[in-house]
Amino acid sequence: MEYFPPALEKMVEQFARLPGIGHKTAQRLAFFVLSLPENEVEQFAQAILEAKRSIALCPVCQNLTEGEGLCPICASEKRDGSVVCVVADPKDVIAMERAREYHGTYHVLHGVLSPMNGVGPDDLYIKSLLDRVAQGEIQEVIMATNPDTEGEATAMYLSRMLKPFGVKVTRLAYGVPVGGHLEYADDATLMRALEGRREM
Amino acid sequence: MEYFPPALEKMVEQFARLPGIGHKTAQRLAFFVLSLPENEVEQFAQAILEAKRSIALCPVCQNLTEGEGLCPICASEKRDGSVVCVVADPKDVIAMERAREYHGTYHVLHGVLSPMNGVGPDDLYIKSLLDRVAQGEIQEVIMATNPDTEGEATAMYLSRMLKPFGVKVTRLAYGVPVGGHLEYADDATLMRALEGRREM
Repeated sequence: MEYFPPALEKMVEQFARLPGIGHKTAQRLAFFVLSLPENEVEQFAQAILEAKRSIALCPVCQNLTEGEGLCPICASEKRDGSVVCVVADPKDVIAMERAREYHGTYHVLHGVLSPMNGVGPDDLYIKSLLDRVAQGEIQEVIMATNPDTEGEATAMYLSRMLKPFGVKVTRLAYGVPVGGHLEYADDATLMRALEGRREM
Repeated sequence: MEYFPPALEKMVEQFARLPGIGHKTAQRLAFFVLSLPENEVEQFAQAILEAKRSIALCPVCQNLTEGEGLCPICASEKRDGSVVCVVADPKDVIAMERAREYHGTYHVLHGVLSPMNGVGPDDLYIKSLLDRVAQGEIQEVIMATNPDTEGEATAMYLSRMLKPFGVKVTRLAYGVPVGGHLEYADDATLMRALEGRREM
């Protein structure tokens, strides 16, 4: 026997698909949405659709960007195209930008190597990084993956892949707390880490 | 300076409006949505809109229902229209139905009296309950608000309002744990509570 209207059940199911949202929480979110005026619910749904439809990856750095062209950082003439900072995630670009100390470009891998979870080199944007470096304009690649096991291993792997191109490969200094996540580092720590980067 | 595409920012803001969802969690949810195929994102948005558009309150019991007419419980000929169980919330109807022991109808108040939070009798569906009772067919009203301070006060208030109609007013027995919430009670407890109800 059903007690919730099917449309409500469907909304609850959709919320429950989200990571970290259980059935009870999904119910609470669904009831909250029902309590909103219809135009606000439309804005909510619209924002989700809009984001999904308009956001693509920058063809150069693979960061999230709106529309088809280059992302604002790759398109900017103020950024130094000879330095590339390699991060695992778009959120890490934001963390780096927050430190206001870095003026090069980025490359977003969209993950780290993780053999345990079946993530190999072909599942990350590694080939597009090598292609960029092969063009010869890049002089330094800064590894800024998280300072945990998988992040380290990914940095090591990339470093070995990049060596043949004769490019300088550096790693963020251990100002960032070992075992932590870049996303939660404070600005001062990130700045220190950037200054103290060393060749690998 | 902006680092996230504005469309993504907007989606994050919308998620952050939900109760219990902070900014970091909203970001995580937004990135998860971006990682879904477009048709699944459409289903997600559609489920939210559909639910909001199609769900209304039953004109008799004020429970959530799909479409304009009576809810399935009020419309059912198998339910005993002479008994009304008064609950604070649609979720409490589900808890009661789960116990499979109750065959009367419901009345959903959509809240409890809470002077501290500015919720008075006019903010709840109390008048429509009195109107139902005034029609004379109802013989018993079972108070099934949560057994906490506000739920008790609401039950006491309603009991006093209903006395002039000469209707029998009962209260769920304290099988339900005092200070708890009806929504989380197990079936056996709810059944015991229903059997042991007493006149107030």
